[in-house]
Amino acid sequence: MLLRTLRDAPGDAEVASHRLLVRGGYIRRVASGVYTFLPLGQRVLAKISQIVREEMNRAGAQEILMPVLQPRELWEQSGRVESLGPEVYSAFETECRGADFVLGPTHEEVVTAMVSADVDSYRDLPVTVYQIQSKFRGEARPRYGLLRGREFIMKDAYSFDESPAGMKESYKAQYDAYCAVFDRCGLPYVPVEAQSGAIGGDVNHEFMVPSDIGEDQFARCTSCDYSANTEAAQSAPREPTPSVSTEDLVTHHTPDRPGIDLVVEFFAARNLAASGMLKCIAVLDEKGEPVVILVPGDRDVIVPSGMRAFADADFARHPELIRGYIGPMGLQERGVRVLADHAVAVGRPWVTGANKHDHHVTGATLGRDFEVDEWGSFATVAPGDPCPRCRRPLELVRSVEAGHVFQLGLRYSTTMPGATFTAENGEDQPFWMGCYGIGVSRLVAVIAEANHDEAGLTWPSQVAPFDLHLIPLGAERSPEVAEAAQRIYDELTAVGVDVLYDDRDASAGVKFADADLIGLPIQVVVGKKGLDRGVVERKIRATGTRDEVPVDEAAAMLAAL
Amino acid sequence: MLLRTLRDAPGDAEVASHRLLVRGGYIRRVASGVYTFLPLGQRVLAKISQIVREEMNRAGAQEILMPVLQPRELWEQSGRVESLGPEVYSAFETECRGADFVLGPTHEEVVTAMVSADVDSYRDLPVTVYQIQSKFRGEARPRYGLLRGREFIMKDAYSFDESPAGMKESYKAQYDAYCAVFDRCGLPYVPVEAQSGAIGGDVNHEFMVPSDIGEDQFARCTSCDYSANTEAAQSAPREPTPSVSTEDLVTHHTPDRPGIDLVVEFFAARNLAASGMLKCIAVLDEKGEPVVILVPGDRDVIVPSGMRAFADADFARHPELIRGYIGPMGLQERGVRVLADHAVAVGRPWVTGANKHDHHVTGATLGRDFEVDEWGSFATVAPGDPCPRCRRPLELVRSVEAGHVFQLGLRYSTTMPGATFTAENGEDQPFWMGCYGIGVSRLVAVIAEANHDEAGLTWPSQVAPFDLHLIPLGAERSPEVAEAAQRIYDELTAVGVDVLYDDRDASAGVKFADADLIGLPIQVVVGKKGLDRGVVERKIRATGTRDEVPVDEAAAMLAAL
Repeated sequence: MLLRTLRDAPGDAEVASHRLLVRGGYIRRVASGVYTFLPLGQRVLAKISQIVREEMNRAGAQEILMPVLQPRELWEQSGRVESLGPEVYSAFETECRGADFVLGPTHEEVVTAMVSADVDSYRDLPVTVYQIQSKFRGEARPRYGLLRGREFIMKDAYSFDESPAGMKESYKAQYDAYCAVFDRCGLPYVPVEAQSGAIGGDVNHEFMVPSDIGEDQFARCTSCDYSANTEAAQSAPREPTPSVSTEDLVTHHTPDRPGIDLVVEFFAARNLAASGMLKCIAVLDEKGEPVVILVPGDRDVIVPSGMRAFADADFARHPELIRGYIGPMGLQERGVRVLADHAVAVGRPWVTGANKHDHHVTGATLGRDFEVDEWGSFATVAPGDPCPRCRRPLELVRSVEAGHVFQLGLRYSTTMPGATFTAENGEDQPFWMGCYGIGVSRLVAVIAEANHDEAGLTWPSQVAPFDLHLIPLGAERSPEVAEAAQRIYDELTAVGVDVLYDDRDASAGVKFADADLIGLPIQVVVGKKGLDRGVVERKIRATGTRDEVPVDEAAAMLAAL
Repeated sequence: MLLRTLRDAPGDAEVASHRLLVRGGYIRRVASGVYTFLPLGQRVLAKISQIVREEMNRAGAQEILMPVLQPRELWEQSGRVESLGPEVYSAFETECRGADFVLGPTHEEVVTAMVSADVDSYRDLPVTVYQIQSKFRGEARPRYGLLRGREFIMKDAYSFDESPAGMKESYKAQYDAYCAVFDRCGLPYVPVEAQSGAIGGDVNHEFMVPSDIGEDQFARCTSCDYSANTEAAQSAPREPTPSVSTEDLVTHHTPDRPGIDLVVEFFAARNLAASGMLKCIAVLDEKGEPVVILVPGDRDVIVPSGMRAFADADFARHPELIRGYIGPMGLQERGVRVLADHAVAVGRPWVTGANKHDHHVTGATLGRDFEVDEWGSFATVAPGDPCPRCRRPLELVRSVEAGHVFQLGLRYSTTMPGATFTAENGEDQPFWMGCYGIGVSRLVAVIAEANHDEAGLTWPSQVAPFDLHLIPLGAERSPEVAEAAQRIYDELTAVGVDVLYDDRDASAGVKFADADLIGLPIQVVVGKKGLDRGVVERKIRATGTRDEVPVDEAAAMLAAL
């Protein structure tokens, strides 16, 4: 067996799953963000792939295999060469004798072109296809081992329907299949509402696994089942509270302090926190008219779809909005509409811009000093915000993404040529599409992250590389031990139990440490002392529970687990 | 089911397997030499992969998964950036934020670096690992569908041993596993001795499948089991036959005719064939000394390992050898050694160069006009040459390559840094390696090429995408037919038979034609007429044999096949 455990984790391993997968002999780094799966890792990957495959097939999806090499031309048709940043798209282009290729980060273009050619009629719909295939992304800073790499393995599925209702049904089937996959992998996942980003479309969910090392956060209601990622989470509307402030509106000279942090520093004597600032962000609406969005200083603005933030040229065209010093006072008279997040609807004075270069105000009070034209959810939520469904407090949960499902709608079928079918009424109609991704290699790390302790990994049995770790002690000196261990191994193997047999000439300490590090669900120790009493020892890795099993019944009892 | 058969084959499909795999809905072209596997094709691929996996595991190889992206640096260490031509290596390089990658055409470099790091001691040897992974080659002219593509799927295995004897044992285990794989795929393969090309090493075998469309040929004895590819095939030595020629050695002025074809044309009146010419090729031996190799004009020279053909500069340095007009006469006096292929050892006069610009001779006779210093197998064999083992005639067989096994020896372990282990005597020693490849996606085409007829594919049952094609006729009009077909489908599916159920509202002619095209081993036709007599029809696709089966026993009988 090509299996070598390491005492030390690699220097770049910041998280437990990365450390333990390398130390336990599951993976090896080939380049930054590029890994080899050793036999143990390959077995975990195969088990997860098989679970995914079974649930996809059960959901009526058909397995296909699309190539890694995708003609660049297809990406020009869909417009994604421009819309995807270098993180995803541009770092992996290649060329072969004049033909330009993209190493596929996803396969929407290829699958749309393929289904367009092979599906003519509504009678052939719905169709959902999936593949398990290597994917490539130009990560600037690959990290966390398998969690964020440049090459990884994904299950990606794509649905094609004749109507929005059909698309929603296909979406639901995939959503349910995802729940089944994560349940079978033993993961405590949460489906959260999400924004779509560059892939396009409207409704979509991320399947998040709470984890301290997560780079994402999602908001979750402490009471009902509402959850959404931080770009999509909303808080409940609040009635604007009349101000109880008696503080006057005072203008201060604040030279060279255009940012929140700089202003907080300036007003340090007032104990000002970022949450006491009013952030005023200039955007252009669908018609190109200027709009200012107000959010508390400790939150980020979520620019509503259809609007976009001011660029340099926009500030030049709108001298009434002074970059870094915008305040909400008197904006309507200057022809600027004012939107505000619900969190601004509280009756207290704010520190904000004075609409004058190098000046801020204190004491700006809603209803007295400024007015809001439209309330909404325009800010990232903060812990304690009221749930949009039940008004109880929201909490923020650190997490890692394990899967993502999208309703794409007509995003690809209207941009790519010929992506239509003949509807029942005889007319050409574009496909209603969905796309669905699970990071199969990423799941190896997500599961490891959720299942480990100080000593090593603690795999759930469904995805463990072997069922059982068989550990003879001193077999070199005791023919009895060697013979008993071999018999148990043979009997278990004969009935289909996958056994990792530690037949090395090594000390008990080394063997125990390796077994805990590798983390198979069950360890069976065959030693001279036990055999003298007719027993072998069994240890449940995850709980540490130990008991003894009569040696003659060992194989039968263990196989029954 | 995403399955659409096509009436017409694509314009670029030159061979049956390509035409039928596209028409039958198995594969679709994405770009030149790049294909998607549709559900049917994916199922064949999965069956072949499973056979390969089982035989690899049985042979003691361990499955791993190495990345597509390989650091270019590793290829510089092994020296293969230069030695592999653009066909294999150079067309697929890519770059990610300053890091240069190669899209792996094979994985010798990656696996050697990985095993070097993870195997310290002779106690950890032997190790054989394998993977099933996408590969990339810069084919100038992809053709024949899956037979010669730019992206394809390979099983590649690599063995590491402490001695040449160990390497030979690992090689034998893989060789036997290959025989088992091809047997199970129903392929009439021939293991032939081969030269190694750029991968390096000594002993190696190609597994060839005889096929009219083959781009390769191998030589096979018509009597014993000797076989070798055309670069490696040898013929038996022959005693030089004393000349019976009375023809004089005559010099002719042959201006501007430096090539065999041109000389044949010049002597058209003599009925000269290329086989009557003596081809004289100048090479340099290991010491840099000039050597001329003689072969009949209709054969190619195989330059012995260690020697190399003259370049321009070499002709300049050796004015005694006149490019295009070299003859064997008097070479030894000019310090040139003469080697000749066994086929030259016949006592007849030759037409050859006159060692004088623009001149050839006729009547050059062995023993009278020229002498040979060393006889050997220096030419490609021709049909009828004597077998090197049993002296019976050899034949040449057109074929396609299905697999290849190599003894690499120390080729990589001595060129790449740190590719050593601690031997039993405590010394560092380089690994003795082997490498072993099967074109998994290529096999789909090779099997299809060997199993088809005019009407379509005729899959062997082990690799067929489904076991059985169930064809109800007129189920829309006959509830009896619909009900019987559904019952047979349910019963077969329940016992694990994979059934392709043609539930389309289409004519019998369309359904039969599609079933023959798709080519599942068994077709079962459920029609009203048959049901009235209590039977369904069964057809064995490969033979065309038909019989009738009682409808009530149909499922049980079919499942038993």
